[in-house]
Amino acid sequence: MEPLLLRQSIKSFLLEDIGSGDITSAALFHRDQMARAVFVAKEPLVAAGLADVAAQVFVTVNPQIKWHAPVVDGQQVMADEIILEIEGPVLDLLKAERVALNLAQRLAGIAGLTARFVHQVADLPVRLVDTRKTTPGLRIFEKYAVRAGGGHNHRFSLSDGILIKDNHIAAAGSIEQAVAKIREAAPHTIRIEVEAETIAQVEECLACRVDAILLDNMECRAMRKAVGMAGGRVIIEASGGVNLTNVRDIAETGVDIISIGALTHSATAADISMRFLA
Amino acid sequence: MEPLLLRQSIKSFLLEDIGSGDITSAALFHRDQMARAVFVAKEPLVAAGLADVAAQVFVTVNPQIKWHAPVVDGQQVMADEIILEIEGPVLDLLKAERVALNLAQRLAGIAGLTARFVHQVADLPVRLVDTRKTTPGLRIFEKYAVRAGGGHNHRFSLSDGILIKDNHIAAAGSIEQAVAKIREAAPHTIRIEVEAETIAQVEECLACRVDAILLDNMECRAMRKAVGMAGGRVIIEASGGVNLTNVRDIAETGVDIISIGALTHSATAADISMRFLA
Amino acid sequence: MEPLLLRQSIKSFLLEDIGSGDITSAALFHRDQMARAVFVAKEPLVAAGLADVAAQVFVTVNPQIKWHAPVVDGQQVMADEIILEIEGPVLDLLKAERVALNLAQRLAGIAGLTARFVHQVADLPVRLVDTRKTTPGLRIFEKYAVRAGGGHNHRFSLSDGILIKDNHIAAAGSIEQAVAKIREAAPHTIRIEVEAETIAQVEECLACRVDAILLDNMECRAMRKAVGMAGGRVIIEASGGVNLTNVRDIAETGVDIISIGALTHSATAADISMRFLA
Amino acid sequence: MEPLLLRQSIKSFLLEDIGSGDITSAALFHRDQMARAVFVAKEPLVAAGLADVAAQVFVTVNPQIKWHAPVVDGQQVMADEIILEIEGPVLDLLKAERVALNLAQRLAGIAGLTARFVHQVADLPVRLVDTRKTTPGLRIFEKYAVRAGGGHNHRFSLSDGILIKDNHIAAAGSIEQAVAKIREAAPHTIRIEVEAETIAQVEECLACRVDAILLDNMECRAMRKAVGMAGGRVIIEASGGVNLTNVRDIAETGVDIISIGALTHSATAADISMRFLA
Amino acid sequence: MEPLLLRQSIKSFLLEDIGSGDITSAALFHRDQMARAVFVAKEPLVAAGLADVAAQVFVTVNPQIKWHAPVVDGQQVMADEIILEIEGPVLDLLKAERVALNLAQRLAGIAGLTARFVHQVADLPVRLVDTRKTTPGLRIFEKYAVRAGGGHNHRFSLSDGILIKDNHIAAAGSIEQAVAKIREAAPHTIRIEVEAETIAQVEECLACRVDAILLDNMECRAMRKAVGMAGGRVIIEASGGVNLTNVRDIAETGVDIISIGALTHSATAADISMRFLA
Amino acid sequence: MEPLLLRQSIKSFLLEDIGSGDITSAALFHRDQMARAVFVAKEPLVAAGLADVAAQVFVTVNPQIKWHAPVVDGQQVMADEIILEIEGPVLDLLKAERVALNLAQRLAGIAGLTARFVHQVADLPVRLVDTRKTTPGLRIFEKYAVRAGGGHNHRFSLSDGILIKDNHIAAAGSIEQAVAKIREAAPHTIRIEVEAETIAQVEECLACRVDAILLDNMECRAMRKAVGMAGGRVIIEASGGVNLTNVRDIAETGVDIISIGALTHSATAADISMRFLA
Repeated sequence: MEPLLLRQSIKSFLLEDIGSGDITSAALFHRDQMARAVFVAKEPLVAAGLADVAAQVFVTVNPQIKWHAPVVDGQQVMADEIILEIEGPVLDLLKAERVALNLAQRLAGIAGLTARFVHQVADLPVRLVDTRKTTPGLRIFEKYAVRAGGGHNHRFSLSDGILIKDNHIAAAGSIEQAVAKIREAAPHTIRIEVEAETIAQVEECLACRVDAILLDNMECRAMRKAVGMAGGRVIIEASGGVNLTNVRDIAETGVDIISIGALTHSATAADISMRFLA
Repeated sequence: MEPLLLRQSIKSFLLEDIGSGDITSAALFHRDQMARAVFVAKEPLVAAGLADVAAQVFVTVNPQIKWHAPVVDGQQVMADEIILEIEGPVLDLLKAERVALNLAQRLAGIAGLTARFVHQVADLPVRLVDTRKTTPGLRIFEKYAVRAGGGHNHRFSLSDGILIKDNHIAAAGSIEQAVAKIREAAPHTIRIEVEAETIAQVEECLACRVDAILLDNMECRAMRKAVGMAGGRVIIEASGGVNLTNVRDIAETGVDIISIGALTHSATAADISMRFLA
Repeated sequence: MEPLLLRQSIKSFLLEDIGSGDITSAALFHRDQMARAVFVAKEPLVAAGLADVAAQVFVTVNPQIKWHAPVVDGQQVMADEIILEIEGPVLDLLKAERVALNLAQRLAGIAGLTARFVHQVADLPVRLVDTRKTTPGLRIFEKYAVRAGGGHNHRFSLSDGILIKDNHIAAAGSIEQAVAKIREAAPHTIRIEVEAETIAQVEECLACRVDAILLDNMECRAMRKAVGMAGGRVIIEASGGVNLTNVRDIAETGVDIISIGALTHSATAADISMRFLA
Repeated sequence: MEPLLLRQSIKSFLLEDIGSGDITSAALFHRDQMARAVFVAKEPLVAAGLADVAAQVFVTVNPQIKWHAPVVDGQQVMADEIILEIEGPVLDLLKAERVALNLAQRLAGIAGLTARFVHQVADLPVRLVDTRKTTPGLRIFEKYAVRAGGGHNHRFSLSDGILIKDNHIAAAGSIEQAVAKIREAAPHTIRIEVEAETIAQVEECLACRVDAILLDNMECRAMRKAVGMAGGRVIIEASGGVNLTNVRDIAETGVDIISIGALTHSATAADISMRFLA
Repeated sequence: MEPLLLRQSIKSFLLEDIGSGDITSAALFHRDQMARAVFVAKEPLVAAGLADVAAQVFVTVNPQIKWHAPVVDGQQVMADEIILEIEGPVLDLLKAERVALNLAQRLAGIAGLTARFVHQVADLPVRLVDTRKTTPGLRIFEKYAVRAGGGHNHRFSLSDGILIKDNHIAAAGSIEQAVAKIREAAPHTIRIEVEAETIAQVEECLACRVDAILLDNMECRAMRKAVGMAGGRVIIEASGGVNLTNVRDIAETGVDIISIGALTHSATAADISMRFLA
Repeated sequence: MEPLLLRQSIKSFLLEDIGSGDITSAALFHRDQMARAVFVAKEPLVAAGLADVAAQVFVTVNPQIKWHAPVVDGQQVMADEIILEIEGPVLDLLKAERVALNLAQRLAGIAGLTARFVHQVADLPVRLVDTRKTTPGLRIFEKYAVRAGGGHNHRFSLSDGILIKDNHIAAAGSIEQAVAKIREAAPHTIRIEVEAETIAQVEECLACRVDAILLDNMECRAMRKAVGMAGGRVIIEASGGVNLTNVRDIAETGVDIISIGALTHSATAADISMRFLA
């Protein structure tokens, strides 16, 4: 995660939570009252965003806060395990606490869900990727959590990937014409991927020698057929309604990539709490 | 939701998703190509953030886009129901699509989960509220969705509510001293709420005549006792580990308020898609 | 004062004063020319915003600037007393000088005026508070100065206090209906205060068991009556046309709080200058 | 006042006052409830910032709000006179009210104080100007109010005027050397003004043919002498401790310009209120 | 060019040029004084950024300004030809003039230089592309001008293209290892391009089946050899020291793409002026 | 160059180039892999913006990066000379590289072109200045480069210089009336300069005792005449179509100042590259 981007987001998250100031703590603590605290996993989880995110929230509030992350991102952690240690002025620890936890919990949630999907297909030569179905404002964080969980990333935004969908095709007249136009206009650094809903469309895509084909909501049988047609010459991505139950079946069709919106839009927060040390 | 705040957030969400431009659509559509599209519920859901959020995403991309929301926020919607209609340049509809959907899906998810909780206790005189466990950057949106689902809001930030927790109490020496200090320092416009973990602490709180007591992870029996001690003179809030299974039991203890982090940290996206009309 | 908020404001204040650069000093000083300077009170004043504001302006210009504040905020200072010492590159001291002085002078002015009001009622159990009549962009600073002068703060913004005024009441139909609606909608963390212009309205407020009543421009006799009616069960705030002459009379009516717009809208700058040391 | 700059400031002022939303009004008004209101002068005052500032606050909240300013900036207004009419959704009028009033009151205060100074010397060929002693963040507004009151502006920032002060002179070695260095470095579009504390320094300045001399805290006799020495060849500015009592004496010395920090740092708010029309 | 990005940049460009306000025009024009003006090409040039950039500068200053662009971007224009017509308040036309001209001149300069390069190889199957050697802050504008001149774009930023250079290779140990690592980590939507300085490296690249090879500063003979080795299976890009004299020779080696830093770093402004109409 | 302004610009330039992250380097380097690199002049050039700009780009990416600039800005440098040394994490050096080079190359280009102009007239008492024809967003940088090359600056923006042009004169009725209005309105700190196209206008300007006259596109003979008429009492600036061929002829007319748009709008990038040290 790019630190220049991170810092901007973290600062705005803190301002959202702080409002015009923490009126409770301001009245009860001296500025120089120090404390130590830890983040504790309250359930088994996959760590994500501890050193790079949660710790940075504390440091943004006060660069003097010291921290240590005893686990690395992506690591499976047991309940009651300490996953982050921080030390600094109580006032600042409390000010950063909620934002740091909210981020760490959400990212661990995504990493954990991703890890469960990855586990289903661990022995198969398939890559599980996220989508653009991320929480607005958190894409950089959530795509990182997917990687921490063992997944990979699809395009980050509309400018770093080409995906020709049904209405693009309709506007251009045919897959062939759409691909031709895109090939003329787009930077050579980016692959051309086309969404196909039928085997006929897969055929059209192969005829235009696209770089990748996204099989949209296809049956496994059709996907297997598409994989066969592609013969390893183009990347085949399966997409649509993927869940923990069907992911292995889909992977066994031989597709190269499975994209899963649920990784980000249906993960729930992992349970982490902050405990002050006596 | 305050429009001045909304617009700022929506603009930054769009920039996140657009990157340096939608290179696929830019190559395939003319600027003046118009289209109509609808948001369709793909499952039963509770509408939230259609007119005020999703439609505003489209309008931010292009103020000429026309829209109509056939349902109101908070309304229970059936699968396949149309929940938003939009019309404008295809290029702009596609540019706004993902951000508008990501927001609408997340907000409907929160509203729906809230509604399920509320349904459990609909006949009881209790108020279900959210917490500060919201997605960073989305608090204004998510707290709105909780209201759309029939819930209420707890404090928005650290500056518009006072919550004296265990380490505040430790720092001050006792609940009594903490409350005295806060009472001296805080604006008179804000109530004083204290977290209590034991009945003894509830008693201390009552002795200081605080405005509200948050019962932290107490057993139902203890909560019932606390409610009795309070005798209606102070607001009693139950908090900690509330879920769909135990919420009714907790409500039946007679507490005034139940705060539920899960409303925002464990809601998953409702399934909504955008469909272009021929 | 929350440092994250402070820094943003101070940076924008500096940019306003610096324009595209200090063309006079840039031509006449070397970057490494060091100097020491002091802020001197040119008249008796109440210190406010020295360590937390003025010194931060210097540090924002150059984090290497060293400073020491021999007085604490809220302290009464005599003419010719040194209230801040700074040391660093001349170029940077001169660049920060005007903004630091403008802030320190204004905040000392507010603290001093507040202290004069507070002095009038020092022996009475009343709290003097500010209003939202602050200088746009400076609320966080000015509310701090009021506290430095011995006053207290009213709500910070429209979101952390409820004040039901005449047109709210008119819109709702009656005080009772307005309070009922607000009670249903507002977070339980915030007290409900209603503006009353007549004794009849005070009665209505008491009947609805509001948390606080703002007596708007009432005569002292009426205020005394309202205080009697309240009997200590609700907070009584006096407001409107309060000045140094009448504040004691008002306080003697027994009201709990007196809000005074003049604290911020009619304070003038205290006289402070910066002197370079040989 | 430059609209591009104005809008940015006004938006941030509104966000400061609105916090996360106006929780009182949101609960009590419908969005489509319309109202008319007026700004009324509660005392005789000089109008400033009505059409260009206060009205723009309303329009920033909601571009549909209609307004009319029956008086022009700089106009002397009587008590009870209506100085601004606005019409639009009540929710939006209330949201803009405080910021609009805070600005209009402060600007009228400055314009009025300036007008009183100007009145003292109306028959003399002297120009009264402001200083950089403005409220941080409000310089563009306050310098406008000085003009509305009949005054003129000194430099706006450190980059659009050259003022060589004592420590600049000390650093350069002499006035002559300082002026030589500045003349070499500075753009030819900006005049060179030097601060003189003694007649000997005035002489030095004249010898270097500076464009303007600022007489710093001089006695009237010395100022008169300086004016004679200048003989109309350079602009003579008087500065330091100017007030309503001594401004005429200073003006009668024949100086061209008198700069008065008090115009901005010691003006208090004029009394203006907003009244809803039935 | 994405309008949301454009508007932000244009606003900041205007603020840079306006400073605290146009003091000359403010004193000499009434707000309602209208005028018509035209942009005239003072030399033959290639139009770029008239409707999308220059006109938007005027509209940003004042949305009421009307405009018409009689030429389209990319069109070759003769000396004295009118290329943009605008109409609105003089004050606003003058405020926008310099920024609009500075942009239009720079973009036409880039488009014109690109067109000259393109002209040299118009009959050859090669694509001329820009680089990241753009003016900081203007990348979106300058890459657009390259397209207007008939060129194409290379990657926009470090996140939408993969280019493995010598120090990446050194760090990984070999081209093979670098490519393997990148293939594992990078999104499947982006092609993998590797910089090769020797034919041996080209061979290595082909062995790893990269998507594109950038021939860094190679002789034409070597480039021809590389093209032969590639046999159309990977994209071959020539880079380094390309100018109007050698571009055709390079193109004739058969490379697919020639990247030219000079398109943006060595274009000079085309001569355009704004003329008011009587 | 003002550091507060610099930092803001540099941060936004970096974000433009980094996009959502450097996906190539992120996959190939460890965070703690250190490297040393140098900026090398690939052709003779005039250094500009090394310590103050290029080095600051590196430091903005990572404050721990160490740097040393063996040459000072304005110094003539030979081909192959090392002009900047940097040391730090490879990841960070690569992240800053392109922005730092783009700036250093452009600034050296401007400084070099300026130096060539200055060289032509080095023995004459004339000052060569830039114009507002700078690259939008880079004015502070480019005006600095002009100074580094031995030139001077004209006004920075519309607010720190007065230039009365033909349409201002037309609006006012005459030069005399325009000057009178400006003299009344403008701050005394800024000189009044008027654009003259004919000797008759020069005469009018002299009659009004303006501070400076800009001779717009005049013949040398006319300029010489104007210089004679001015007799040293006002600053004479020549402007319009100045190039390396005619600049000496123009200077020999005796004008005080020659303004040259080409310094910034027609400079091309100097050739500088970054080389990693083994």
